[in-house]
Amino acid sequence: MQEFRALANRLADAAGEIIRPYFRAIDTSETKADESPVTAADRAVEMRIRDILSEERPQDGIFGEEFGVKKSESGLTWVIDPIDGTKPFISGRATFGTLIALCDEDEAILGVIDQPIVKDRWVGIQGEETLHNGQVCKVRTCPSLKEARCSSTSPGMFFHREADFIKKWKEQVHFITWGGDCISYGLLASGHLDLVIEADLKPYDFLAHIPIIEGAGGRMCDWQGQPLGLSSGKEVIAVGDLALLEGALRLVQ
Amino acid sequence: MQEFRALANRLADAAGEIIRPYFRAIDTSETKADESPVTAADRAVEMRIRDILSEERPQDGIFGEEFGVKKSESGLTWVIDPIDGTKPFISGRATFGTLIALCDEDEAILGVIDQPIVKDRWVGIQGEETLHNGQVCKVRTCPSLKEARCSSTSPGMFFHREADFIKKWKEQVHFITWGGDCISYGLLASGHLDLVIEADLKPYDFLAHIPIIEGAGGRMCDWQGQPLGLSSGKEVIAVGDLALLEGALRLVQ
Repeated sequence: MQEFRALANRLADAAGEIIRPYFRAIDTSETKADESPVTAADRAVEMRIRDILSEERPQDGIFGEEFGVKKSESGLTWVIDPIDGTKPFISGRATFGTLIALCDEDEAILGVIDQPIVKDRWVGIQGEETLHNGQVCKVRTCPSLKEARCSSTSPGMFFHREADFIKKWKEQVHFITWGGDCISYGLLASGHLDLVIEADLKPYDFLAHIPIIEGAGGRMCDWQGQPLGLSSGKEVIAVGDLALLEGALRLVQ
Repeated sequence: MQEFRALANRLADAAGEIIRPYFRAIDTSETKADESPVTAADRAVEMRIRDILSEERPQDGIFGEEFGVKKSESGLTWVIDPIDGTKPFISGRATFGTLIALCDEDEAILGVIDQPIVKDRWVGIQGEETLHNGQVCKVRTCPSLKEARCSSTSPGMFFHREADFIKKWKEQVHFITWGGDCISYGLLASGHLDLVIEADLKPYDFLAHIPIIEGAGGRMCDWQGQPLGLSSGKEVIAVGDLALLEGALRLVQ
């Protein structure tokens, strides 16, 4: 695993080097078929990561947001979101990140969240303590939903729910901050947030977070409380204090 | 005005020096009577700014989020939000900022948005070009609502509207990013965002933005299209390209 950790760190370094010159400088955004925005930076980062992996781990699979699936011959698959939070990236706000996950069959065993402007990097490995910028980080104690600091990227994730879902959620917790994208999961692992509830995600949006949050003492699952993997659906919950999980599941059901 | 600019920059410097050691380090958050969170950093920043102003501008009024109103004897009033975006601040996310506005009677004639972690500072003065980190910044050309990059802090700001207000808004624009607080207004002045629509604001939440956005070529007004001032209500619109204003007003009416 230490070899994988080193490789994942090098992939994140390479991504940051590509991203930084684009940030607030070169506007290359366009709209994909699914109406979501993409930039030349997203594509260049994923290309670079795929090149490094194809060179160093030719048997491993790759599943990237922009260039799809390369089948695994080793059972291992690298799952890449070159820029999670392309909307804030285009908007000049440093709440985006590069996500790198390594899956053993369905299960995420390594994850990296890298924010190359603020310079936040979280690295999680199954069975090990999560590191934020090289230092061990931990979720905070917060057993009561009433005290929970919550986050979610966009109310649009809940358009399929009853109209007052967000209002009900807000009434049951300390507060909800919006717009964190992947950074919210890192901040939860570092003990600044307690609960993230999201929907409408793809596997590359959440797999990296699982080893990071679980290695910091938290838990991730779907809205039914089931484990998340490479073949999982769109809805995720992340809690810092495990005592929050039951209330969080009740909230979404 | 150059004396005021220098003073406002010194106030922002002092605020950043106080805030940085608290960020992600010392958790002092508590809940105010109105249920909003506050920290020792909010209070220490406003205290320091009030001390400097009382020393250097004893005749000017002060209106601060945490410690209220000191009446003006000069017609000038400094309006202070020590930490706009206390929720992201507590959550460890650098999308908060110190807001400093100077009003001549009702009208904002100077504004500063300062983000002391990412080190973004926007300074606007009525009739002058807006500066971002000392460089002139401009809104971008975006005459079509369909292409507009929008931002707003929280869906809770629209709970008083019809249930599908956010959905309708989203359908008419390129995208909405959430959770930007004051930083969104700065990013609009720098040409990264095109439209901010917010409600439920206090004067200290928006006065600083007016000279910043107007000095970059944009416009701010209330939801009826009327100018905003010290005595204004809760609802604001900010546009980069003036051609967006009509569509934005239609959207909220």
